[in-house]
Amino acid sequence: MRMRSLVLVLGIVLATIAVQAQATGKKYQGAKPKYVFYFIGDGMGLSQASVAEAYLGALEGKGEIKKLNYSQLPHQGFFTTYALNRFITGSAAAGTALATGHKTTINTISMDGAKQKPLTTVAEMARDRGFKVGIVSSVSIDHATPAAFYAHQPTRNMYYEISLDLSKSGFDYFGGGGFKKPDGDGKLDDKNSMANFGMDDEKELKDKEKNSKLVAKERGYRFVFSRTDFDNLKKGDKKIIAIAPELAGGKSLPYAIDQKPGENISLAEFTQKGIGLLNNTEGFFMMVEGGKIDWACHANDAATVIQEVVQFDNAVGVAMDFYRKHPEETLIIVAADHETGGMALGFSGKHYESEFALLQHQNVSYEAFTEKVKKYKKKHKGDYKKKDGLALVKKHFGLGDKSKGLELTAFEQKQLEKAFEKSIAYDKKMKSKDQFYQLYGSYDPLTVTACHILCQKAGIGWTSYSHTATPIPVRAIGVGGELFSGYMDNTDVAKRLIGLVKK
Amino acid sequence: MRMRSLVLVLGIVLATIAVQAQATGKKYQGAKPKYVFYFIGDGMGLSQASVAEAYLGALEGKGEIKKLNYSQLPHQGFFTTYALNRFITGSAAAGTALATGHKTTINTISMDGAKQKPLTTVAEMARDRGFKVGIVSSVSIDHATPAAFYAHQPTRNMYYEISLDLSKSGFDYFGGGGFKKPDGDGKLDDKNSMANFGMDDEKELKDKEKNSKLVAKERGYRFVFSRTDFDNLKKGDKKIIAIAPELAGGKSLPYAIDQKPGENISLAEFTQKGIGLLNNTEGFFMMVEGGKIDWACHANDAATVIQEVVQFDNAVGVAMDFYRKHPEETLIIVAADHETGGMALGFSGKHYESEFALLQHQNVSYEAFTEKVKKYKKKHKGDYKKKDGLALVKKHFGLGDKSKGLELTAFEQKQLEKAFEKSIAYDKKMKSKDQFYQLYGSYDPLTVTACHILCQKAGIGWTSYSHTATPIPVRAIGVGGELFSGYMDNTDVAKRLIGLVKK
Repeated sequence: MRMRSLVLVLGIVLATIAVQAQATGKKYQGAKPKYVFYFIGDGMGLSQASVAEAYLGALEGKGEIKKLNYSQLPHQGFFTTYALNRFITGSAAAGTALATGHKTTINTISMDGAKQKPLTTVAEMARDRGFKVGIVSSVSIDHATPAAFYAHQPTRNMYYEISLDLSKSGFDYFGGGGFKKPDGDGKLDDKNSMANFGMDDEKELKDKEKNSKLVAKERGYRFVFSRTDFDNLKKGDKKIIAIAPELAGGKSLPYAIDQKPGENISLAEFTQKGIGLLNNTEGFFMMVEGGKIDWACHANDAATVIQEVVQFDNAVGVAMDFYRKHPEETLIIVAADHETGGMALGFSGKHYESEFALLQHQNVSYEAFTEKVKKYKKKHKGDYKKKDGLALVKKHFGLGDKSKGLELTAFEQKQLEKAFEKSIAYDKKMKSKDQFYQLYGSYDPLTVTACHILCQKAGIGWTSYSHTATPIPVRAIGVGGELFSGYMDNTDVAKRLIGLVKK
Repeated sequence: MRMRSLVLVLGIVLATIAVQAQATGKKYQGAKPKYVFYFIGDGMGLSQASVAEAYLGALEGKGEIKKLNYSQLPHQGFFTTYALNRFITGSAAAGTALATGHKTTINTISMDGAKQKPLTTVAEMARDRGFKVGIVSSVSIDHATPAAFYAHQPTRNMYYEISLDLSKSGFDYFGGGGFKKPDGDGKLDDKNSMANFGMDDEKELKDKEKNSKLVAKERGYRFVFSRTDFDNLKKGDKKIIAIAPELAGGKSLPYAIDQKPGENISLAEFTQKGIGLLNNTEGFFMMVEGGKIDWACHANDAATVIQEVVQFDNAVGVAMDFYRKHPEETLIIVAADHETGGMALGFSGKHYESEFALLQHQNVSYEAFTEKVKKYKKKHKGDYKKKDGLALVKKHFGLGDKSKGLELTAFEQKQLEKAFEKSIAYDKKMKSKDQFYQLYGSYDPLTVTACHILCQKAGIGWTSYSHTATPIPVRAIGVGGELFSGYMDNTDVAKRLIGLVKK
């Protein structure tokens, strides 16, 4: 007993020395991990995790939170996110910082701020030391965050060039959403490019710049599109691009709230498959992005955010299972690129009250609901009725349903009716007016108003349809995890990780 | 060099053991601090610190932040704040949690949730082990947060009973704002009770319940009201209540933004004086509250919040100076009771831009500005002119001044004019309407609209006039500081601290 006390005291003293060494820029000399998971929740600030925990707790009816996997990791810090040329960052600059340890300009993908020099990423360093490398995302695999780990391009919109960089990387596994623009014809191939892409139509592409998926095949990659093929992937399979458009519905995984259980491949399954493919005695590095938390936050849609956070956290859970089997060799980091929406667990009209469980009455994402509004509009342009808009909102958000505790005030009903009129009459000119933008952003007015009112009744407020500069929590467990404590910059997260990954 | 590496590796390993011991609920066996500073920023969430850092950075024009003292402390964690009977806490329940390690009900001061049993506070434990104890606050010293450290009352509004508990505590030093209700006559003594209180008017109080300041005197306390007496306080002076109403302007210290430099005693000076009075070979415990961060957040007044945060941080700076002289014996914790206002570093109408430096053009607090509106209203009730309202806003917020980069859009000008009309016509009935409340809370409409518009132009958004349930950062440095890492509950903060303070 006394011996243990002495050991602990000595531990504290030496840990203090270690922390001081770190603070003064001295090199970390501890053990290094062999298996590295780098989770990035796009748009996931402190509030996004907390709302999910408050909601899960509220469903259990105890007035307490139910903790996510990742919020329980023992080492926690915060970091600032500003880009070189803007205080509120974007996913490209933030992804570059988290991947390379360097600040860059908005929209730049792992190049310096002047867009001249490529910056080596931690994933490339992992590859170069002999680790297997995997990149997983719930959005398209050429999107800014995943791209920042394998591509070097002056702008995130160069999707074709980014997709060429993907196969150039030589990484062992890509999983998640599809390619946005595999063709080099200068047009953004936005609709079902993957679904329409057959494996035998090379001839059709003759006169175009070479399709980046063909290039990938030439470079030894195998594409996996179906659940059967995905399920059949096994240890030893090399250079896999599992972007599963058939199951995942195209460019990105469907929102968790819109998914039919078992039908789509989840982020957790992509992560689990990654472990199966990458696990080897030399080590691996896997980046996993929950990319649609951000999108749902842009739309101020809390119910969708929560399900995205939970899906992301399930993927962390898979890594935690692996960690428990290899605690002496594994590092898990959970970070985010920035917060989106200025989400808070409190809303003025609700004063000091919260009713998070009310969010369970929303049964579709903002995106799916907007499709329904569009469909109605197409059918009823000339003869729309206010009550139809309210009925739609009642069906999918529960708003106006007294039995669900979601009775509308006169003010709220007026807000919805007005928004519905705007939805029907919506045109581009409206967007330019600041009052219109503050109310609806660039979203369908009825959709965003329904999201707002349900959030408000739950006790959730939003300040923006864009990113914010509020610092981001980083959580870590495992070998070297203690380096991710304290207050740092997003570049410090990458620098510390690079110190652990680089040979 | 090699030896140092070994020491560091050993340190990390042993620190991991220590962290694991903590995570598995094993008792902390490390060294204990002799000097403990417990800073509590009322209403101070992650954003409040970040906005201050972004503002200070923006004034230097580098697009980077300028770090506060307290955000640089090496050990950082987050904690949840919910009360026993409400998810969004209040200062009494939160103060009780931070002082005793127990959850309680809203408005209860260091008693159990049923308001039956007193809960021993960490300050009382410190006293009982022979530490000298000090309590400092920028708001009245009987307010919920400081009271939670020395009083045990069923409700925070029992200011008279709380002030009796104050002198019963036997603590060595109280500094900051005055007593809200020293008289036991059943009336809340709201206006200048301290300023009117002479030291020789015991006779006037004969027929009342005994004035709590007289009780304090009988219990051996000495009141200090003037800067001269305050400056003359010296080591060895015992049982001091330095609530300085003459200099501090009554019940609470003036807002930093309204203070004239050197005229008022600052929170940092109260802290410095506390060190001078409490420092002794047996040890001390001092709680220092920045109480008006919360108040300014309730009013959504970012410029005032920033100056309050800086003033609070200056007090932390004083403790840091002490820590540097006694690093092996000192612990500093910086926490908060809850976030207020749902503040975020991003506003919808500003999209991805921020201009924090614009806040420098606000030259009074919301409170002082409201006084100006009231004065105008009194004088011009029948014949007010819109342009007068706009002129007042321009003078004190810079809004409408093109040369300051604060030109108003037509929409903003309309918002201000409408608010000014409401300010003039303001009555209680308006407050009940939810639309009115969402726009103005319970504040003067012109004041809060001016605060909102300036915040919006700076790129700051708010979601509430109340507290929120967004988790709170805790930062620590010094002996035992590593215990305040990770994700915990507000009661855990106190439990860990109690473990370090209790003999």
